[in-house]
Amino acid sequence: RLHLIHVSLNMDHLQVIGGGTLYVHRFRGNPLEIHLAMFLPTLLNQATPEQMDRFFTPSWDLEIIGTYAQTEMGHGTHLRGLETTATFDPATQEFVMHSPTVTSIKWWPGGLGKTSNHAIVLAQLYTQGKCHGLNAFIVPLRSMGTHMPLPGIVIGDIGPKFGFDAVDNGYLKLEHVRIPRENMLMKYAQVKPDGSYVKPLSSKLTYGTMVFIRSLIVGNAGIVLSQCCTIAIRYSAVRHQSEIRAGEAEPQILDYQTQQHKLFPLLATAYAFLFAGQYMIDTYNRISGDINQGDLSEMPELHALSAGLKAFTTWTANTGIEVCRMSCGGHGYSRSSALPDIYVEFTPSCTYEGENTVMMLQTARFLMKSYRQVQAGQQLSGAVSYLNKVHHRVMAPQAVSSQLDLNLNTLVDLYEIRAAMLVELAAQSIQQESARGKCQEDSWNNSTIDLVRASDAHCHYMVLKMFRDKVDQIEDPGVHSVMSTLAHLYAIHGMGNFTGDFLQAGVLTGAQVPSVSKCLKGLLAEVRPSAVLLVDAFDHHDKMLNSVLGRHDGNVYEAMFEWARSSPLNRTEVHESFHKHLKPLQAKL
Amino acid sequence: RLHLIHVSLNMDHLQVIGGGTLYVHRFRGNPLEIHLAMFLPTLLNQATPEQMDRFFTPSWDLEIIGTYAQTEMGHGTHLRGLETTATFDPATQEFVMHSPTVTSIKWWPGGLGKTSNHAIVLAQLYTQGKCHGLNAFIVPLRSMGTHMPLPGIVIGDIGPKFGFDAVDNGYLKLEHVRIPRENMLMKYAQVKPDGSYVKPLSSKLTYGTMVFIRSLIVGNAGIVLSQCCTIAIRYSAVRHQSEIRAGEAEPQILDYQTQQHKLFPLLATAYAFLFAGQYMIDTYNRISGDINQGDLSEMPELHALSAGLKAFTTWTANTGIEVCRMSCGGHGYSRSSALPDIYVEFTPSCTYEGENTVMMLQTARFLMKSYRQVQAGQQLSGAVSYLNKVHHRVMAPQAVSSQLDLNLNTLVDLYEIRAAMLVELAAQSIQQESARGKCQEDSWNNSTIDLVRASDAHCHYMVLKMFRDKVDQIEDPGVHSVMSTLAHLYAIHGMGNFTGDFLQAGVLTGAQVPSVSKCLKGLLAEVRPSAVLLVDAFDHHDKMLNSVLGRHDGNVYEAMFEWARSSPLNRTEVHESFHKHLKPLQAKL
Repeated sequence: RLHLIHVSLNMDHLQVIGGGTLYVHRFRGNPLEIHLAMFLPTLLNQATPEQMDRFFTPSWDLEIIGTYAQTEMGHGTHLRGLETTATFDPATQEFVMHSPTVTSIKWWPGGLGKTSNHAIVLAQLYTQGKCHGLNAFIVPLRSMGTHMPLPGIVIGDIGPKFGFDAVDNGYLKLEHVRIPRENMLMKYAQVKPDGSYVKPLSSKLTYGTMVFIRSLIVGNAGIVLSQCCTIAIRYSAVRHQSEIRAGEAEPQILDYQTQQHKLFPLLATAYAFLFAGQYMIDTYNRISGDINQGDLSEMPELHALSAGLKAFTTWTANTGIEVCRMSCGGHGYSRSSALPDIYVEFTPSCTYEGENTVMMLQTARFLMKSYRQVQAGQQLSGAVSYLNKVHHRVMAPQAVSSQLDLNLNTLVDLYEIRAAMLVELAAQSIQQESARGKCQEDSWNNSTIDLVRASDAHCHYMVLKMFRDKVDQIEDPGVHSVMSTLAHLYAIHGMGNFTGDFLQAGVLTGAQVPSVSKCLKGLLAEVRPSAVLLVDAFDHHDKMLNSVLGRHDGNVYEAMFEWARSSPLNRTEVHESFHKHLKPLQAKL
Repeated sequence: RLHLIHVSLNMDHLQVIGGGTLYVHRFRGNPLEIHLAMFLPTLLNQATPEQMDRFFTPSWDLEIIGTYAQTEMGHGTHLRGLETTATFDPATQEFVMHSPTVTSIKWWPGGLGKTSNHAIVLAQLYTQGKCHGLNAFIVPLRSMGTHMPLPGIVIGDIGPKFGFDAVDNGYLKLEHVRIPRENMLMKYAQVKPDGSYVKPLSSKLTYGTMVFIRSLIVGNAGIVLSQCCTIAIRYSAVRHQSEIRAGEAEPQILDYQTQQHKLFPLLATAYAFLFAGQYMIDTYNRISGDINQGDLSEMPELHALSAGLKAFTTWTANTGIEVCRMSCGGHGYSRSSALPDIYVEFTPSCTYEGENTVMMLQTARFLMKSYRQVQAGQQLSGAVSYLNKVHHRVMAPQAVSSQLDLNLNTLVDLYEIRAAMLVELAAQSIQQESARGKCQEDSWNNSTIDLVRASDAHCHYMVLKMFRDKVDQIEDPGVHSVMSTLAHLYAIHGMGNFTGDFLQAGVLTGAQVPSVSKCLKGLLAEVRPSAVLLVDAFDHHDKMLNSVLGRHDGNVYEAMFEWARSSPLNRTEVHESFHKHLKPLQAKL
């Protein structure tokens, strides 16, 4: 809840400081993003009242500009591996901050390179000869007057990236930099003047933050996919190409079945992810409630789900953006389409806030634990309650009726059966590895392919279930009907992609597969008349989309010509490269 | 053959003109690329001796710099839809070149915007009141002295793109531009002084060029994938992260099964595509032979195969590049990895030289034709001979032996059965649509999802078969063994991805699927010790790879620090943005 407030605070604050001075695009990175989205909130969460006075007000006024320096050149996902040290010196009441190796150099924090004058640095705390693990420290980086790096601070930009050109992701090498004891963030953990360490009472708060941010990413995957679908589907209604029937006019490319097959399942997916994101945030708010009073027993499940869904939705959206881009033919490659920019901005979310494969394996750990509980005779509740049935063999490969039933509720059941089967197969793989004499860890590692698949199937089931539940709540019959079609399409398309699992689970026969394909084609044709309306409903304004191909008025070609004419290379009829390079070259030959 | 010479000629020429003056990276686009790779070769192929005198020598000397202007803003794949006109005026013995609409503006040609002073323009030829379809014309664009656009020439750069920053892809609007009759490329088609049109004798030559270029693209997909695998696999051997066994040192990330599962199948695919590219070029050379003497009866099959393989290999490589990039974690996102640049340079090949979905459907057309021939009782030969068996029901779903045989030759057979099944299902879909009263064209369009799948399966089978055949030729037992493992991995990995097809075809049972998965894991473990050697064998030199992560010496972190320090933003300790923006902003608040 705290964070929801922060996000909206940050947006407003961004607009205040952005007013006329700083160009801030809501969907583009900017060098103050980490200051607003992480530095200020971390102070709010972890600073003592004294630290709030000393740091928060100047930070709010942008006198202090901060970043959050956690990742190191050689260490990302595995936090325990971070090497930066903060060694307490009781003689001077200071911490000595140090980067002992090249791999320990802080790497990637946004705004670190050139913009920030402070950083919250995560470092291994050493005091009284003992390491107490990661703690957070406020480290001044640059002089407040001249902005010059302070002594012992080796700092700079890490160089060009795939995208985020406007953000100075930076590096920071600390060379025995001394900061006062009072610069450790001490609301929870503390180092006393004598050097004794006081542990934090609970780590639930940071745990919650992670869940919250991953839930936001899930919704964001839906937003981004909805933007791309808007662009590609509008353009596909404007673009005419080739012929379906000889001699007739070139049809809208949206009339080609292959184009529908690329775009409509993604349209359904965009809605699915938006609903999933909403569900996650709602659940988070419900569970965390007033943080001090909340019953947090559901948190582990939400944590597991948020990890897997973060990976599931970002991977899917990541691929989907590129499908949308390529479905626009050559013009998708032009930055006038906005699709290349959307891709390079979005794709890091497969890596940051928890690398996706690692995320899938976190969810898998929860699934395996749940599976073992069922095996031990416990009755599970919540999202994994379907595993109860595995144990009772209700879901073992079963006879399939000759008449294939593909209604939405049945499909949710089939996805449940698929997930249960893959969870069971992963558990069996671990058991078999153990039986072959492998230690627990090697058994796990040798089963990770199966574990990722199990998590993936679990997430797929959960997203479909949330979609179905959402559809069930819709009262307007028209909206209910079209959303129901989309949910159905989402389910059937996934079934087409993972036919093998459903066949393997014995809930589908080879002879029935063509019916699934026929059902899919029927749904594509059903979506066709509403497709443009369904992307209009996302309500992305032209200014935010910033795409020549995705214009609401469909005036694509005139706009593309205008956009091209304003290319920087067109400032002069004869570009300077002619005089500088071509003419001398021609003269030589 | 002619083209092979051109390619190597162009490379040499590039080096000659590149000597010290022009920075040319072999794998990066440059503004003279189309001049060398298309303008000069087109002159060689289609110019008359008189035109060779007038245009070729000055072009070779870079006095004339040309581009190839075919694609229009509103028209790509469908050549008949191009709108630019060339109307013959017998009174002045000139062609009037004209862009009648916004959509007819030439769009995308490389080097058109600012560099070229001539273009070969593809236009609909009108003479004596009749349209004779597309022909090629040499149109002067800019004055030879001043480089200023000539009258009636509206020309410029089309603006920023995903990549190809160094290439001025351009637009060209022709406003009743007159060129002499002698500027039509007349080696084959001709317009006589009286305006009468002489048709070309054969279109086989251009047909052959297309096949040749697509074959090159197949090999290039292999090269690019081999570069990415080199980078990702080397880095995965350098990078240590997390833990497999508690308390032990962080392992190389290449020891994680999930990492192997991402990279080793791509390594196998890189080899597969390199062999496929080699096969295509060899076959092209064999078939075309001395072009005047060659028996071109095999050409339609090669044409069909080259279309599908172009799509199959570029789609796979395109996805694979991103898998490699993301397998490098955050650092893959840095341009120091080279992977972002490789992606943006490669991804257009899914669209150019034939949009991939259209390509797949061209192959499908050939497959459907072959299937109909089998149905009519003909015996097929060549790549599609496996369809003979469909007709005789030898490959209909068959009993599977309880002991799963997964040796390489069996796998090739299973892929054959899969392809045959999908070809048959696509044909049945068309027949069913017809039976429902749809016209031939609608039946086709309503079956294109199935048709693309059939082509995909056909290509997959062909690539595996070429891989197996290549392995069979290897005499060195060590090389044979490791290549055999890779071919096996390629086959088993595909089987895992398309389990549904094999189950549906009845050549696999649900109970056997875990054996496929077990086999896959065994192969990954088998490849592990040779993985780095297998990418070293591609022999990509550091200078060409240009990747900090993919360095041969493995000195990744030192090099990354050095690369970062040379970032343009680091030229000064305090960036100008501080004085320009931050300071005034801070003063205001």
